[in-house]
Amino acid sequence: MSNYKHQTAPTQFVEAAGIRFAYRRFANRRFGAKIDIPLLFFMHFTGTMDHWDPALTDGFAQDREVILFNNAGVSSSSGEVPTSIEEMAQHAAAFIDALGVKKLDALGFSLGAFIAQQFTIDRPDLVRKLILVGTGPRSGEGMASLTPEAQEIFGAKYDPQDELWLRVFFTPSKLSQAAGRKYLERRGARKENRDPLPNEKVAPAQVAALQKWGAPTKDPYAYLKRITQPTLVVNGSNDVIIYTVNSFILQQNLPNAQLILYPDANHGSQYQYPKLFVEHVTLFLNA
Amino acid sequence: MSNYKHQTAPTQFVEAAGIRFAYRRFANRRFGAKIDIPLLFFMHFTGTMDHWDPALTDGFAQDREVILFNNAGVSSSSGEVPTSIEEMAQHAAAFIDALGVKKLDALGFSLGAFIAQQFTIDRPDLVRKLILVGTGPRSGEGMASLTPEAQEIFGAKYDPQDELWLRVFFTPSKLSQAAGRKYLERRGARKENRDPLPNEKVAPAQVAALQKWGAPTKDPYAYLKRITQPTLVVNGSNDVIIYTVNSFILQQNLPNAQLILYPDANHGSQYQYPKLFVEHVTLFLNA
Repeated sequence: MSNYKHQTAPTQFVEAAGIRFAYRRFANRRFGAKIDIPLLFFMHFTGTMDHWDPALTDGFAQDREVILFNNAGVSSSSGEVPTSIEEMAQHAAAFIDALGVKKLDALGFSLGAFIAQQFTIDRPDLVRKLILVGTGPRSGEGMASLTPEAQEIFGAKYDPQDELWLRVFFTPSKLSQAAGRKYLERRGARKENRDPLPNEKVAPAQVAALQKWGAPTKDPYAYLKRITQPTLVVNGSNDVIIYTVNSFILQQNLPNAQLILYPDANHGSQYQYPKLFVEHVTLFLNA
Repeated sequence: MSNYKHQTAPTQFVEAAGIRFAYRRFANRRFGAKIDIPLLFFMHFTGTMDHWDPALTDGFAQDREVILFNNAGVSSSSGEVPTSIEEMAQHAAAFIDALGVKKLDALGFSLGAFIAQQFTIDRPDLVRKLILVGTGPRSGEGMASLTPEAQEIFGAKYDPQDELWLRVFFTPSKLSQAAGRKYLERRGARKENRDPLPNEKVAPAQVAALQKWGAPTKDPYAYLKRITQPTLVVNGSNDVIIYTVNSFILQQNLPNAQLILYPDANHGSQYQYPKLFVEHVTLFLNA
């Protein structure tokens, strides 16, 4: 592992479970990052490795190794996107086993945090600490399908298309929108070896999976008792994609969870407050 | 202002509004604390200056000046405890004006955070940032009187009496109780010039005030829109004195609030995680 950063880390590949997984792995070794427990990122709906914010990934890479990957069927990874969170978690575990990683911290965002929850339940041996961002539990409030706000936002046209994310991740306030434009700039800074956009089969399969995850069930939060790892739940005050109350529900039902909510922030609060988010997560991981 | 600490800061007095207010004021100047904006502490039900945790006060005093005080009628301060939060906030403002302080950060705990809210509304010019710990809004959930849990806990006998606070501030878990005993030790470390215990008139007057604050009203959270200062709301995951959901309600209704909830913690989560709390608050104040 050389001294790569978000913009320079090469896309590598590893085979597992019949899938050729694309991933990137980096740490700021010059700065003295410890590389014993990497931080594994689980990406959101229709996202690729290039959708992560370098302010976060390079921020964390000051202290620890960071692993980004595309799950099966997404962008530069081969295979098909399955239609359940359980299968996505199994793919992620196959990928991690193929890398030979025995212990990690997991950071999931939105759909990626559904997968991270399931991954932690399936493979508690692998996960030391868990960070759940902009997400919710199975059968959470307003999670049976896309929220009305999400349907409107994802259904609208944008020019350029990237402006979609200003509405998904940020509030309408001036400050939040300005932070959003800075996030898009940072995200676009990697010019070479970017991931291809996901194909047209990704979104429908992921929607099917998140609808199964969100469907009403009896005693839906009982499964959270099985996640005994220290967990940090983070969201914005006004998440219209996965309602903020779901972060409170997660915290109240997980055995060992801290909750942080940021003001005037929507689904992508960690991109609005990247420095503070890295500081909060680093305090949590180093405690 | 010399280089005092929690245990050595002398109790001083200042006259205002016919009250002789007792207070202590200190900062670690040797360490380089900035003294332009002090941090003013608002104490909880039946507490005196000696009920603050030195791990917090000395922790903050590394970076900034700390001001503790007893409000009117409490312990070493003269006068009578009024029966409304509004009058308590007026007393606090008279005290601060008498000190000549023009700008401060305010940290209120429980009843003290009701007063800090009212103080901020009355005197927005004085308050730069606000920290609300283990508290709730007017007419919050279960706040019309003491919760059933609080009635049981405050009504029981303890030997020594200080063990009351192990149940008020900490959960029944082994880890939380062990943290509670450490808190009581730290709190007892000041041996000289301690505050006298509050007299028998304090609790009934404060109960009357908190019942008025908690009484059901129409559109009870509208007043929170008037607190535009950056605010940090902190509580434990399982506060049985002022239910944790009230911290979420505060965050959701304040215009500019961050929320932090700590795991396996009751009303005194800041005493269970003193180091992390000081780090979180310091990040908030220095942002």
